[in-house]
Amino acid sequence: MADPGGFALDPRLAADTRPVGDLPLSRVLLMDDARFPWLVLVPRHAGLVELDDLPRDDRITLLDEIELAGRALRALAAPDKLNVAALGNVVAQLHVHVVARVRDDAAWPRPVWGVGERAPYPADAAAERIAHLRDRFGLR
Amino acid sequence: MADPGGFALDPRLAADTRPVGDLPLSRVLLMDDARFPWLVLVPRHAGLVELDDLPRDDRITLLDEIELAGRALRALAAPDKLNVAALGNVVAQLHVHVVARVRDDAAWPRPVWGVGERAPYPADAAAERIAHLRDRFGLR
Repeated sequence: MADPGGFALDPRLAADTRPVGDLPLSRVLLMDDARFPWLVLVPRHAGLVELDDLPRDDRITLLDEIELAGRALRALAAPDKLNVAALGNVVAQLHVHVVARVRDDAAWPRPVWGVGERAPYPADAAAERIAHLRDRFGLR
Repeated sequence: MADPGGFALDPRLAADTRPVGDLPLSRVLLMDDARFPWLVLVPRHAGLVELDDLPRDDRITLLDEIELAGRALRALAAPDKLNVAALGNVVAQLHVHVVARVRDDAAWPRPVWGVGERAPYPADAAAERIAHLRDRFGLR
């Protein structure tokens, strides 16, 4: 999973997600949790921890990719609210959560992190969701 | 608290915070919780809910103001990690949390929202912290 610049996805992020594809800056991951339509964007540079470790131009690209992720989730899920967050207390590698929330989801109105147990997608549901997302992101 | 454009701070945000001052786009609030050095940025336009309700130029300004908030917190608190999040499940008005986290804080490694009870600052500690922050933000 290493890019030429030395990027390697944190193994804990890899273990909890399925890859969707690569945007110009970020690897897009689908959180493997069928309870929440949930994407994770990981800018593909080595050694990033905080948002401002990214050069400003890349940070603006990340902002645009967050917008794309929100649009892709809206096409899947008709959310009542998007939650966007860069936390990184557990996995330090810079990553941004974009989560589609609805008023009757398993955590509402609390944040999603640390709520109950992750519910992995059945394999065919994951493949279908990823195909749909790749379409939305224009990934071929 | 209304600006000419019809902006008015959500009363729940007002109740939980103390005002620090206004940056070009955002009102800066100090979460009145001495457990966590915690700023909230509220872009001063009426009717915003999601990040992409902001025109892209303003979103970039918000990104720059998030960076300023992070720097101001680093000057106060030597955080192990910054947490940056736009959630809005409880208060819909668009607002961005910027929280300085340390490994022995009251919530680590969990997110701060909904953890225990808010611990308001003593009045003099709040005034001192706000004066320090206004300095850091260049607010006079």
